[in-house]
Amino acid sequence: MSRLPTVHDVALAAGVSRQTVSNVLNAPDIVRPDTRERVREAIERLGYRPHASARRLRTQKSSTIGIRLDPMVDGISGSILDRFLHALTEQADAVGLRILLFTATSPEDEIRQFGRLIDGSDVDAFVLTSTFHGDPRTEWLIEHAQRFVTFGRPWGIDDMNDPRHPWVDVDGRAGVRDATESLLRRGLQRIGFVGWPGGSGTGDERRGGWVDAMQAAGLGEDLDRLQEAGVDTVAAGRDATSRLAARVPDLEAVVAASDSLALGAVVREQAALPVVGFDNTPVSAAMGFSSVDQRLGEVAEGVLALLEGAPDAPRHRLVTPELVIRSSHPPAVPDEP
Amino acid sequence: MSRLPTVHDVALAAGVSRQTVSNVLNAPDIVRPDTRERVREAIERLGYRPHASARRLRTQKSSTIGIRLDPMVDGISGSILDRFLHALTEQADAVGLRILLFTATSPEDEIRQFGRLIDGSDVDAFVLTSTFHGDPRTEWLIEHAQRFVTFGRPWGIDDMNDPRHPWVDVDGRAGVRDATESLLRRGLQRIGFVGWPGGSGTGDERRGGWVDAMQAAGLGEDLDRLQEAGVDTVAAGRDATSRLAARVPDLEAVVAASDSLALGAVVREQAALPVVGFDNTPVSAAMGFSSVDQRLGEVAEGVLALLEGAPDAPRHRLVTPELVIRSSHPPAVPDEP
Repeated sequence: MSRLPTVHDVALAAGVSRQTVSNVLNAPDIVRPDTRERVREAIERLGYRPHASARRLRTQKSSTIGIRLDPMVDGISGSILDRFLHALTEQADAVGLRILLFTATSPEDEIRQFGRLIDGSDVDAFVLTSTFHGDPRTEWLIEHAQRFVTFGRPWGIDDMNDPRHPWVDVDGRAGVRDATESLLRRGLQRIGFVGWPGGSGTGDERRGGWVDAMQAAGLGEDLDRLQEAGVDTVAAGRDATSRLAARVPDLEAVVAASDSLALGAVVREQAALPVVGFDNTPVSAAMGFSSVDQRLGEVAEGVLALLEGAPDAPRHRLVTPELVIRSSHPPAVPDEP
Repeated sequence: MSRLPTVHDVALAAGVSRQTVSNVLNAPDIVRPDTRERVREAIERLGYRPHASARRLRTQKSSTIGIRLDPMVDGISGSILDRFLHALTEQADAVGLRILLFTATSPEDEIRQFGRLIDGSDVDAFVLTSTFHGDPRTEWLIEHAQRFVTFGRPWGIDDMNDPRHPWVDVDGRAGVRDATESLLRRGLQRIGFVGWPGGSGTGDERRGGWVDAMQAAGLGEDLDRLQEAGVDTVAAGRDATSRLAARVPDLEAVVAASDSLALGAVVREQAALPVVGFDNTPVSAAMGFSSVDQRLGEVAEGVLALLEGAPDAPRHRLVTPELVIRSSHPPAVPDEP
């Protein structure tokens, strides 16, 4: 035969499955000696060479996805991108793709890393996280015709439905709306929101979900009085909740833009008020408060689907997060007849 | 020249630094046009081909370290291996090594993954985590003459000083001893320990540190009454602390084997007792209790040093963790004259 022999050819010649050929190569001890011998004979006879670097030079595909790993972030929501990385690695492995990690000190440095990785055929696609308005990384990858998907919508680009690159994001607005509606359905009305200072795309979207739900319930009059903001720490969440409670003595619940802020509210209120956080961190589970889960498994699945996507397939996915209700949530009100 | 040209040859020919050559290849926009032209001319004249797969076939080195990434673990200490991964990726990148992630469903499956990665020259070294007594992975890697370091001592092997493979671990016993001594120095005596059920190497070592400190302080009589155990959850920590407090009404402090157990003690005691955890998770920082930090940056540094180590260099490193003292710690007692 003129082309190079494959695992499939070896399997056919030896009368075994491809998995058995792989086992003979990688874990011969688990293969019966006579089968092992037969497979080895076929490998030798066909001249099969299982060498990925050689394969890579032929196909120019490394089956590897590059992703930047940032220094560990402190704070209880710092592990969100790690959770995504776990989900991505697992799902990628299941379809034969591997994840290569690198670091970068700035977007410009990340672009240099892209260059090195492409140059070396080390990866054949990228996943970008923490995208931002005017991100030079996406421009560079588009100009250099690289395959990539962002976890994060193209902030600042008007038409999200005609994006210049595929992206997956979580619909934070829908998540906070669900959380607020869940409290409204249980008969609460004075539901405060503790968010981040204005101007962050993600934070403004989450606040928007609370505004949507309150307005739809006819409670849009009082929204200024019912909201507070702080940076993303437990102490800021505690202080913001204190200000809110001083202004609204009959406050009935708090919805927060993150589990850090929510934990601050929980610590201050000693569980007197229902609090809903965002990110469904292990802390929310440990402390028993409800929280919005980003469904990072869905995000990872979307990223891989878009990386493999045909040119005419949908180019983005907005994942709807899921409210996880815990013990501190008020009991459900039975439906009226 | 008979050998293939290198970046160094290009740099010499163009009269620039190797960094500039790399910039021309990877981020040409940041290089002055005349310099760029000169470097490109040199690249063409010498026939330099910056292709990692080709290089890899020549050198059989991929400069890549393989490490298994497990599904995300719930619980507030679940991020410890992620923290290690961040530190390892950063320090590896600084010396030109990359991290390749894979998954495995069992030790046997991990061994098959080793085989595939070696077979494909995808990696040239492994880092193993979560080692255990009789671990078949280390046996396999030794038999197949692979370069690897474990994060975790070779449990069950008598002579830790003459290990069959290099390893790095954290001295949990020293960490808990420090935590206990810190409370003893502040005048406390009835210091309880909340640990895991006996039989886990890591857990028994941590308990041993508390026993060491209490015995050295002449408080070895009462140790059975002062200890409780539970599985690694906040609820188990709360219940174990309840049992301990019921039996020892004048309990003065709690040292716990993990931040999960410590958080349970903190939640139960509402900050009435000083509590020291283990792992220095973001939760300990958020809730303001002291905790023992594993110094995973040191662990990562040790792993890389041992991977590169000469045959006669030390073959293991036991990293001493560091007690991080927070607001709930009792105030220091001034030294007596």
